[in-house]
Amino acid sequence: MAEPLCVGLDVGGTTMKAGVVDDAGQLLSHVNVPTEAAKGQAHGLATMAETIRQAVAAANLPLDRIAAIGVATPGSMDLATGVILDPPNLKPWRNVPVRQYIADTFQLPTAFQNDANAAAFGESWVGVGKDHRSLVLFTLGTGIGGGIVLDGRILEGAHSHGGELGHMKVDITGGRQCRCGQRGCVEAYASATAVVARTYEALQQDGGQSQLHSAGELTAQTVFAAADAGDALAKSIVDRTAFYLAVGVANVIHTIDPELICFGGGMIAAGEPFLNLVRRYVRDVAFAWPAERVIIRYAALGNDAGMIGAAGCAKLLLNTGK
Amino acid sequence: MAEPLCVGLDVGGTTMKAGVVDDAGQLLSHVNVPTEAAKGQAHGLATMAETIRQAVAAANLPLDRIAAIGVATPGSMDLATGVILDPPNLKPWRNVPVRQYIADTFQLPTAFQNDANAAAFGESWVGVGKDHRSLVLFTLGTGIGGGIVLDGRILEGAHSHGGELGHMKVDITGGRQCRCGQRGCVEAYASATAVVARTYEALQQDGGQSQLHSAGELTAQTVFAAADAGDALAKSIVDRTAFYLAVGVANVIHTIDPELICFGGGMIAAGEPFLNLVRRYVRDVAFAWPAERVIIRYAALGNDAGMIGAAGCAKLLLNTGK
Repeated sequence: MAEPLCVGLDVGGTTMKAGVVDDAGQLLSHVNVPTEAAKGQAHGLATMAETIRQAVAAANLPLDRIAAIGVATPGSMDLATGVILDPPNLKPWRNVPVRQYIADTFQLPTAFQNDANAAAFGESWVGVGKDHRSLVLFTLGTGIGGGIVLDGRILEGAHSHGGELGHMKVDITGGRQCRCGQRGCVEAYASATAVVARTYEALQQDGGQSQLHSAGELTAQTVFAAADAGDALAKSIVDRTAFYLAVGVANVIHTIDPELICFGGGMIAAGEPFLNLVRRYVRDVAFAWPAERVIIRYAALGNDAGMIGAAGCAKLLLNTGK
Repeated sequence: MAEPLCVGLDVGGTTMKAGVVDDAGQLLSHVNVPTEAAKGQAHGLATMAETIRQAVAAANLPLDRIAAIGVATPGSMDLATGVILDPPNLKPWRNVPVRQYIADTFQLPTAFQNDANAAAFGESWVGVGKDHRSLVLFTLGTGIGGGIVLDGRILEGAHSHGGELGHMKVDITGGRQCRCGQRGCVEAYASATAVVARTYEALQQDGGQSQLHSAGELTAQTVFAAADAGDALAKSIVDRTAFYLAVGVANVIHTIDPELICFGGGMIAAGEPFLNLVRRYVRDVAFAWPAERVIIRYAALGNDAGMIGAAGCAKLLLNTGK
C-alpha cells in the first residue's frame, strides 16, 4: 500500500461509511454504521469517531498509521468553519462543528466537504474522471446533488454552495415543487423521487393501459423496467426525465463547460439506453460545439465515491495545506 | 506608467476599440474604428491590426514599447487554437485565425479571449471585482453575455463555452425563442432586446392605458423610464425582468457560488432601483445562506471593460505563459 494513509468518512442520512484509503486511492477497509440522526448530534459526532476507529481496525492498522481524515456530510454547511448548518437529511442536527470535533478527537489534520462534492472529487481522482481535467457529477437519488472539480480542485464556491446542481431553476413559469421549498428546480423533475411522483400523476390521467397500474408501490427502478418492457406510459416518463436532465446538463455546459459530465446515484441502474437518451437531448438543447465534444458517462465508484473522495480531500490537505 | 505595456483590442459587431494599458490596468490611449464585418474577414483582420497601431500611436509610443497584445472577440470561438468559428455578430466571418494573425503581424505574445470573458477579467482586475476572489459578470445588451473569473483566472471551459450565461435554460416548458435558435434561454427573457419584445407583446394586450402606446419606437431605456414615471405596464415589465435575471443569478449561485455577481452592458442605465429588485428576487429564489452573502452590483468599467480585460489577459500571458 502507498503511504500516507487517510480515512474517508461519508455521513449519510441512514448510514455512515468509512474506509482507509491509500495514497493511490485504493480502499483498504470498509465499514458501515447506522447514522441514527434522530438520536441527536452529540450521538452523531460520537458515531462518526467510532466509525472512523472501526475502519482503521478493519484495515488491521493502529491509529497512528493514519495521516489525515476527510469527512463528507450532506448540506447545508459552512465549509470555512467546518460546520453542518441545518441538514434536511440529518434532522434535528443544527450547527454541528464536525471538523473541529474530529480534528480534536484524533489530533489529525481533518478535511471537511459536502458529500456530493466529495463524490465528484473521488470520481475525478480515481474514478471515471481520472484522465480528465474537469468533471461535473450529478448524483441522482432521492434528490439531485452535484459536484464540480476543475484542475483537481473542488469548486466549493465563496459560500459553500458551489455545485448545488439539483437546484438550478429550469422552470420560471412556477413549475414543480421541490423539497428545498422552491419551485422549478431540476431536482423536482429528474430525481428518482420526482420520477415516481411524475409517474403516479401520469397514471391518474391514464386510461388503464399501463402495466404500472398493477405494479404495487412504485420506485424509479420499476418505472425504468416497465419502460424497457415497452410500457408506453413508462417510456414517456423516462423520455421526459432524460430531457429534463439534459436541460440541467446544458446549463452546466453553458456555465462550467467541463470535459466530462457524469451521473451517479441509484438511478444509474437505468443503464446505457437512458444515457443515450440524455446524450441525444443534450445535443438538441446545448450549443453544438461543446455538446458534440463533452463526454457524458456514468460514474465509476458507486456508493464508495464519497468515502474515497473524502479521503482524497484529506490527502490534498496534507499535500497543499488546504 | 507601470511597465510592461500591453494593447487590448475589443472587436465588436459595430466598432473595434483598442487601447494601451499599463501594468496597473490604467488606460493610456483609446481609439475606435468601424468593424465593417460585411467587408469580410481579411478586411476585418487588417482593421484589427490597424486599430492596434492607432492605439499605440495615440499613446505617443513606438510599437517596440508594447510587450504583448490581447484580443477579445464575440463568439463562437475555439480558444485553444485562437480561432473565431461562426460569430453571429460578425457575419460572414468563419474560422478566422485571429490569434495567429495578430501574433504574426506584430511578432508579439498574443492572448485571445471571448469578449464577455475579457470584460469579466477587466472588472476582476481593476473594476468592481478588484477586491474579490471570484466574480461572475452578466452583460445585458442585445443579448446576454457572461464571464466567470475564479482566483484571477477566467473559467474558459474545456470547449471555450464557459460563462455562456445568457443561454442557461430557465423554461423547460418551451418558452421564448432565443436568437441562438433554442427556446427558454435567460437571454430571451432579460436582454434589452427581450425587454422591448415583451413590452410590445404586453401593449397588444393592454387596453390603451400605458403611456408607451404613444412613445414611438421603444428601447429598453424608454421602458425603464416609463416604469420610473409610474406607468403600470412598464413597471410590470421591469419587475418581471428583474425576476428573470434573478433566476439566472440563482442558477449561477447554485453552480459557481461567487463572491460577487455584477451586471454590465447598456441596461445598467436602469440604475439602483432595478438592482434592488434583482437583489430582492435573488433572496426569494436562491438558498438563503449564499443569497444573503453574495454581493450584487453593477460593473464599473463601462464599455472599456473588454479592452482593459483583453490587455489584462495579455499581461497574464506574459507573467504565466498562458
